[in-house]
Amino acid sequence: MSTLPQKESRASTACPGPASTQDLGSSCDNGPERECSRKPDQKLYAVGDASAIFSSGSSYLSSRGSIIKWFWDSAQEGYRTYHMDKYDEDKNPSGIINLGTSENKLCFDLLSRRLSQSDMLQIEPSLLQYADWRGHQFLREELAKFLSFYCKSPAPLKPENVVVLNGSTSLFSALATVLCEAGEAFLIPTPYYGAITEHVYVYGKVRLVYVYLDSKVTGPDTRPFQLTVEKLEIALQGAHSEGVKVKGLILINPQNPLGDIYSPGELQEYLEFAKRHKLHVVMDEVYMLSVFEESAAYSSVLGLERLPDPQRTHVMWSTSKDFGMSGVRFGTLYTENQDVAVAVATLCCYHGLSGLVQYQLAQLLRDHDWINQVYLPENHARLKAAHTYVSKELRALRIPFLNRGAGFFIWADLRKYLSKGTFEEEMLLWRRFLDNKVLLSSGKAFECIEPGWFRFIFADNAHQLRLGMQRVRQVLEGKSQVAEDPPSSQTQEPSSQPR
Amino acid sequence: MSTLPQKESRASTACPGPASTQDLGSSCDNGPERECSRKPDQKLYAVGDASAIFSSGSSYLSSRGSIIKWFWDSAQEGYRTYHMDKYDEDKNPSGIINLGTSENKLCFDLLSRRLSQSDMLQIEPSLLQYADWRGHQFLREELAKFLSFYCKSPAPLKPENVVVLNGSTSLFSALATVLCEAGEAFLIPTPYYGAITEHVYVYGKVRLVYVYLDSKVTGPDTRPFQLTVEKLEIALQGAHSEGVKVKGLILINPQNPLGDIYSPGELQEYLEFAKRHKLHVVMDEVYMLSVFEESAAYSSVLGLERLPDPQRTHVMWSTSKDFGMSGVRFGTLYTENQDVAVAVATLCCYHGLSGLVQYQLAQLLRDHDWINQVYLPENHARLKAAHTYVSKELRALRIPFLNRGAGFFIWADLRKYLSKGTFEEEMLLWRRFLDNKVLLSSGKAFECIEPGWFRFIFADNAHQLRLGMQRVRQVLEGKSQVAEDPPSSQTQEPSSQPR
Repeated sequence: MSTLPQKESRASTACPGPASTQDLGSSCDNGPERECSRKPDQKLYAVGDASAIFSSGSSYLSSRGSIIKWFWDSAQEGYRTYHMDKYDEDKNPSGIINLGTSENKLCFDLLSRRLSQSDMLQIEPSLLQYADWRGHQFLREELAKFLSFYCKSPAPLKPENVVVLNGSTSLFSALATVLCEAGEAFLIPTPYYGAITEHVYVYGKVRLVYVYLDSKVTGPDTRPFQLTVEKLEIALQGAHSEGVKVKGLILINPQNPLGDIYSPGELQEYLEFAKRHKLHVVMDEVYMLSVFEESAAYSSVLGLERLPDPQRTHVMWSTSKDFGMSGVRFGTLYTENQDVAVAVATLCCYHGLSGLVQYQLAQLLRDHDWINQVYLPENHARLKAAHTYVSKELRALRIPFLNRGAGFFIWADLRKYLSKGTFEEEMLLWRRFLDNKVLLSSGKAFECIEPGWFRFIFADNAHQLRLGMQRVRQVLEGKSQVAEDPPSSQTQEPSSQPR
Repeated sequence: MSTLPQKESRASTACPGPASTQDLGSSCDNGPERECSRKPDQKLYAVGDASAIFSSGSSYLSSRGSIIKWFWDSAQEGYRTYHMDKYDEDKNPSGIINLGTSENKLCFDLLSRRLSQSDMLQIEPSLLQYADWRGHQFLREELAKFLSFYCKSPAPLKPENVVVLNGSTSLFSALATVLCEAGEAFLIPTPYYGAITEHVYVYGKVRLVYVYLDSKVTGPDTRPFQLTVEKLEIALQGAHSEGVKVKGLILINPQNPLGDIYSPGELQEYLEFAKRHKLHVVMDEVYMLSVFEESAAYSSVLGLERLPDPQRTHVMWSTSKDFGMSGVRFGTLYTENQDVAVAVATLCCYHGLSGLVQYQLAQLLRDHDWINQVYLPENHARLKAAHTYVSKELRALRIPFLNRGAGFFIWADLRKYLSKGTFEEEMLLWRRFLDNKVLLSSGKAFECIEPGWFRFIFADNAHQLRLGMQRVRQVLEGKSQVAEDPPSSQTQEPSSQPR
């Protein structure tokens, strides 16, 4: 296959530095930890290679078909185990608790009541027939109003800039394909929601250039894993020097897995950087309404007074996270660039969603009373309570973590549990959690450069959280009933997990 | 872009032969017509080139992004006109009647009643959350039962062989990608539903090798446009001789646009041919329940006693045609090959459909009483009545056509209206229809080798059919109010129309 990315240039095991103490920033809870000392030749970026991980083929599939199948097989490693042995309070109380998949399971009662109302089931000929691939006009109008309101846009957003798809996974695939040639790349700060690697590669054959952030607060940084324009510049120049053409920058805000929220000033800097280099900016804002801490002020790029390069700024949002409906498969693109909107819309015949669902979404999103008075306040209160509980548990274990007020996750520093500080150890720890019936996501799945970080999902009900954290504690305190060193045949690394 | 197909080897204007009379087979209505005499060097196949049609780019898009956008722009030529000036009995009685898009608009009343029943709106946590990308187990079980029953499979079909997607467009894209490398090809007999060109190319960069069928009944043929193994062999060897690697064969049964139904014997021959050459067979059976003529016996490949090469036989079905719900975006793959099923399922994170819709589909498809006693009998009766009406109109105009008992379309021979028998004339005629407010699909959109064929969709209500056929008659009798030669700036060819 001529379009495969080049071999990855980053070593898979990094940062085996000596133990010491490290400050994780003002909003981070402290505890005993090790510093990840950086060697002088430590790379600050890397060109990813989604295909390098792949090994075996099938005689019935094309080479790319085999790579695609590999993504399934590898993702299944943790999830197959989980799905075969899912926790159920009554039927399988010793089953696996999932603190790995980023879903909000706290508000099903609210959603169920709203979605069951009689205004939701509407059957009209136009909903059953072929429609505009950009999405039904009524939904695009509703989305323009919705985003204008919740993103606090300085002027009303326009329906003609809205494209509707079946999820933001599809949107990553479509944008990668229409913005980049095969083999070209997007910059992305790490750690990041790792499935993006797959989404831009599988159909688009687009690579990611990692902008490595780490937990050390140095130079102008004010917090761990801080993104700066300097780091972006270094990665961009580095990629160019390796002959990799970078076409854009992917930013996630609020950030997954860090929970960081970029300030308007930071956003402006990143966008100016992109404009200087004529880079597209793909802004993933799928957690924008999941900011549960009142003191955490969120700014959408759509709310900025002036976009530096509106023709190259493309915003994605979805109901998967903010409305806890990842199974409904809805995502949307907002872009002023009509070439991009039309090209993505053309791909929507592969990423379309049912007219019936488009109708339901329009009904839901136009109900600002319910959203503002019922759903968001209750959702935020529940997220906050769940976050408080898991934070307390982590503090009790003296585990440092980033204490943010957005998203469904806590980015926690388990480096003190790795004796040598390698990704092999991180993976063994991940497996010990799984063997003790709790599924987590380890830092490697987010291309974190420091081994030992884990993402804890807290947007689940209190009982499951309690049980999950109990099992985590058992493993970390060495009290779990499972072997510390599982057979090497089981040591495949988790990846490609749903976010 | 390194993966572009080679330049198309077929001339765009073919068959400028002298006028004569031609028999279109026993089931074809006769009338004055011209024979398309084939020159000795007339090609029997061609390697398609989806990119050759493309001209201009956008500075914001990749080269493939520009090609993708081109598909939109070109498809919009007829459809933009149509959508801006859609016929409405009350609001826009002089608007355009659409006899071009293959949709069944005859049964909305039945569907609306069934889909509005209270069993259709079910909200469960599992429907709102991430699910198995192959589709919910309950739907795959229902589909296995449904296909076993309606395809008359000799043994029960299995849920593990079922993959659920958002439409058969997506399935073409996914199968092309996992079965072929970029630049490889599928064989396809022409005329065929032309959008397949786009579906296998846009993401997959897979080409089509056309197996040209024509209206002349020669040699062992018993009907016009008859597919034989000999023609398949010639095209396959021809493609190989041009260095094009063919990986599979696409068959549409019932055929779109011909309405032909392959007999079990024919199917067996095509499948044996494919097995001999280790070709995958993609069987598009999306019209399998739209056989409205009782004498027309339909056989699904899933009903064959024995599949020659089950690991390379992949069947697609959808509710878009048979249940008149193209806007619901549902398609399914049935394959015994687990490598293919898993690879396609991996791509389903870009082609997934809402859990809520999966639930509704399962409710609908399990209701065999309604399907057998209400929906299918009434649907078939209405299709037959509409077909009878359009047939009568065509006979009155002495237009020959293929008189089949399946699908929503009549393949009609308007060659007598082309004085020179060129595709330019065909396109001008298409435009005269559009200018007289009736949208049709011309043969070029189906890669028909003979200029002058048109597809008439009849699955619409009586009033619109009457008006549409009246407008067709006006054009053909030279009584329309529009100019015969529109300005050359408007002569872009229609393509990429929804089927």
